[in-house]
Amino acid sequence: MGIRLGKNSYGKSCVRLLRVGRQEARHDIKELTLEIRFEGDFETAHTTGDNRKILPTDTMKNTVYVLARQHPFEPSEDFSRRLIQHFLAHNPQVQRVEIDAAEDLWARIPCGGSPHASAFTRAGEEKRTAMLDATRDGIAIRAGIENLIVLKTTKSAFQGFLRDRYTTLKEDQNRILSTSIQADWLYDGSAIEFNRVWDGVRRTLLETFAEHDSLSLQHTLYAMGEAVLHSFEPIREIHLSLPNKHYNLVNLSTFETDNPSEVFLPTDEPHGLIEATVERD
Amino acid sequence: MGIRLGKNSYGKSCVRLLRVGRQEARHDIKELTLEIRFEGDFETAHTTGDNRKILPTDTMKNTVYVLARQHPFEPSEDFSRRLIQHFLAHNPQVQRVEIDAAEDLWARIPCGGSPHASAFTRAGEEKRTAMLDATRDGIAIRAGIENLIVLKTTKSAFQGFLRDRYTTLKEDQNRILSTSIQADWLYDGSAIEFNRVWDGVRRTLLETFAEHDSLSLQHTLYAMGEAVLHSFEPIREIHLSLPNKHYNLVNLSTFETDNPSEVFLPTDEPHGLIEATVERD
Amino acid sequence: MGIRLGKNSYGKSCVRLLRVGRQEARHDIKELTLEIRFEGDFETAHTTGDNRKILPTDTMKNTVYVLARQHPFEPSEDFSRRLIQHFLAHNPQVQRVEIDAAEDLWARIPCGGSPHASAFTRAGEEKRTAMLDATRDGIAIRAGIENLIVLKTTKSAFQGFLRDRYTTLKEDQNRILSTSIQADWLYDGSAIEFNRVWDGVRRTLLETFAEHDSLSLQHTLYAMGEAVLHSFEPIREIHLSLPNKHYNLVNLSTFETDNPSEVFLPTDEPHGLIEATVERD
Amino acid sequence: MGIRLGKNSYGKSCVRLLRVGRQEARHDIKELTLEIRFEGDFETAHTTGDNRKILPTDTMKNTVYVLARQHPFEPSEDFSRRLIQHFLAHNPQVQRVEIDAAEDLWARIPCGGSPHASAFTRAGEEKRTAMLDATRDGIAIRAGIENLIVLKTTKSAFQGFLRDRYTTLKEDQNRILSTSIQADWLYDGSAIEFNRVWDGVRRTLLETFAEHDSLSLQHTLYAMGEAVLHSFEPIREIHLSLPNKHYNLVNLSTFETDNPSEVFLPTDEPHGLIEATVERD
Repeated sequence: MGIRLGKNSYGKSCVRLLRVGRQEARHDIKELTLEIRFEGDFETAHTTGDNRKILPTDTMKNTVYVLARQHPFEPSEDFSRRLIQHFLAHNPQVQRVEIDAAEDLWARIPCGGSPHASAFTRAGEEKRTAMLDATRDGIAIRAGIENLIVLKTTKSAFQGFLRDRYTTLKEDQNRILSTSIQADWLYDGSAIEFNRVWDGVRRTLLETFAEHDSLSLQHTLYAMGEAVLHSFEPIREIHLSLPNKHYNLVNLSTFETDNPSEVFLPTDEPHGLIEATVERD
Repeated sequence: MGIRLGKNSYGKSCVRLLRVGRQEARHDIKELTLEIRFEGDFETAHTTGDNRKILPTDTMKNTVYVLARQHPFEPSEDFSRRLIQHFLAHNPQVQRVEIDAAEDLWARIPCGGSPHASAFTRAGEEKRTAMLDATRDGIAIRAGIENLIVLKTTKSAFQGFLRDRYTTLKEDQNRILSTSIQADWLYDGSAIEFNRVWDGVRRTLLETFAEHDSLSLQHTLYAMGEAVLHSFEPIREIHLSLPNKHYNLVNLSTFETDNPSEVFLPTDEPHGLIEATVERD
Repeated sequence: MGIRLGKNSYGKSCVRLLRVGRQEARHDIKELTLEIRFEGDFETAHTTGDNRKILPTDTMKNTVYVLARQHPFEPSEDFSRRLIQHFLAHNPQVQRVEIDAAEDLWARIPCGGSPHASAFTRAGEEKRTAMLDATRDGIAIRAGIENLIVLKTTKSAFQGFLRDRYTTLKEDQNRILSTSIQADWLYDGSAIEFNRVWDGVRRTLLETFAEHDSLSLQHTLYAMGEAVLHSFEPIREIHLSLPNKHYNLVNLSTFETDNPSEVFLPTDEPHGLIEATVERD
Repeated sequence: MGIRLGKNSYGKSCVRLLRVGRQEARHDIKELTLEIRFEGDFETAHTTGDNRKILPTDTMKNTVYVLARQHPFEPSEDFSRRLIQHFLAHNPQVQRVEIDAAEDLWARIPCGGSPHASAFTRAGEEKRTAMLDATRDGIAIRAGIENLIVLKTTKSAFQGFLRDRYTTLKEDQNRILSTSIQADWLYDGSAIEFNRVWDGVRRTLLETFAEHDSLSLQHTLYAMGEAVLHSFEPIREIHLSLPNKHYNLVNLSTFETDNPSEVFLPTDEPHGLIEATVERD
């Protein structure tokens, strides 16, 4: 019985860049971190150390910087697609290129009431993501959000669940619900207005989280996914990964003190994790 | 020559809590992480293992939760001071109590154009801090900001610096300037409106960073400190610690491509670090 | 066109425990962090908020602690399998259970030349992992290593690679090679001596990395995978994910100083990433 | 009342380097991360943006690499001292130079029973540190250890402590004791064998932690400090900062299961923190 190479890829991670657009009256900035991966005809590179088909990952990095200067950089989905086209056009040994792009979000500093033309502050821990997966036969484009942390203080219950002999959790009619939204969605079709849709999905996710009468985090996840699919035609499916960031009511009865849903202990460990795809039929 | 105990302290770190204020029409939340340290008569605890004067750190934690329920929780400076008063009043063996409080900032989710009454999103990586240091003779109160990340694309130069034989850095008339603001300031007097002043200091730091004609990060640091002291009478001194988060212009000349201050490489390592206190005479 | 629930799961992450085995003359410890995921009949939980088939993630956590007391805890693969059997036996609504276990490694503190019976030091950043994926029809067991950082100062070249107009990387006959080994392998058969094999795979990976005449990281990855498959019959395939942690030779020629492969700059960003599965035919 | 510059400094952080020593039969490596800070005559740099006395932090970095090539790199204390001498000799505007050095520890990979000549594995999360603080009048040298994680399963009690109305902690005759040792000590005199003493201090800290009959973490901290001062004449004082990494016994009585000190829940938040200096009279 022999041994052989199975599925394999190589690429460059953490390629960071800031692109400054300098108009007369206003500067725009965009900060991205890219990950690029190639699949292709790389068997002898592994088995015999033949590097003739290996474009160095250092070259991938250089290519990012050159193309970021020569081509529009906005939105990330278009820039990433152009990178992919470049790599596929010049590298016959490559069969598939994947690019993940994560954008750090910046907001203009308010100065004397109006947004500053050239000074910015980081808008949060949240990232806007794009994930492209392309062969010479086609391309799949996903966009997403990572690390959008939310919390609500009412309209969240968890009751009527299955109990076994190891169940001690109490029914809760009005618990704190908090999560860090990680979402990504698959686009259908080609003439997408990526920036407009992304803003809309983000707003829909936040509003649905806020307004939903939650019976569980699964229930709210589904409502969020459904609302996105209802509102945005070019999205075929959305995947949500939602940690249940528990805020436990502190029991103060030992100290002859009541605690009517006021003082909570935030915890990171352990945490629930709810994941699902909501899709069109 | 003998051996003895020198300066020592003990306490509890990472005491986390969320406090929910439930008014009819609106909920308010505040999330804090506290660190509590005691200094006092603890020599025999170290040298002979005599624990009779050691209030357990677990008790410090319980005390935080009970007092958070019984007393106003806003602002952090007042709540921390009340904790200190409690510990000093009940623990004659304690000579000094220090409390550091770090607040995670939450903003209301906008829903249909107006801020939601009970749903929130994390406002960023930034933290509002308070540091209290008290003995039975007095208390020093500092407030601060951590991790407020900013960047400007113009009005920043670094020129005319000292050169030696290991200097290769080029003069730069118009570089990117970026830092993560860590500031803390000492209050003078007792009737401070902590929330109002904090908001004002934050705004002043941001506006000064944005507007300053920077000749170096030292130069901008001083301008930021000076602006705060000019505007806020109850602040005696302010300490600023500013990493110089370098964004290096990528050299594309090898690829016959120019780069007129458009494509930059963000780096975390190594980084400059500028620290100074600006104080009243 | 309707909207429906696609693939979904829920579970508990970061369930941490330390198990102490107390023999007369010697204590043994094992520290694990578990992640548990269920797939099954959870559609109405999402669509209508019906929790009757939802065993709380809090119960999953309790079950871990009870079973860790009642059953042997060593090796992780057996303990995780027992957890899975418990969950499948008592939860007809569950179709699949996945468990990931990550072990923090502890070594005995050497005291007067011999290993201490009950005092330990953390053996490194490295983790031993196990990943079980089970339905009522069968179980797949993978074991692995994460974060095993290695470096070699010779027998590593990278030459003869593909060049395009954006390639500036120099051929290197003798570079530093460093990576953080992440490996996981699939077991075949049922009577595996998990501890013995894991120790053997780890040793084989380290020795192959050390001894291999590397023409690229792909080349070394394949050699490592091949060596493992040669030596360990019960392993059907091994997946390796190896970041190329670049150590760049510092150019000192500007300072009239040579640098014959002596002073290097370690960098984390950007980094190469090489991934492949090596498998039996 | 005017405003003025108070205490200030500037420098370079996260200057990383690997130094390879290439003997015929054996390579040695040493990986350091340095932080350099200057204090001096920098008032006008802050107040007027006059950079004529500012040696760029980029030059500090270059200097590290050049001197690492030209001079012995071992031990860190000597290399750091040489850097300081260089900076003080060439920069009359500088009054004080501080250097912190943190060493990542590497061990040789065992191959066929013996340590490999040129292949290494990271020895753990632990770092060896050195902190030098120098003016033209003298130098203070501290060495230290960070992140040396230890745990013992017996010979640790915490009893007889102070109780107030918020105390719920139970007396514990035999708890798990775990901490992450952070130690630094001040040297006295000039002809120190830095490597030999560091190895000895590390061994003494570990053995004392393992063997001590602990009545509290304070008690063990003092024993560790005392043991170091007893054994190492050139150390004038040692500072220890020890988080109390709690491992809580899981209460299984709800499930009709006993737990005789076998199953514990490791927690990071909150944690105790014990700090003290042990010094010569």
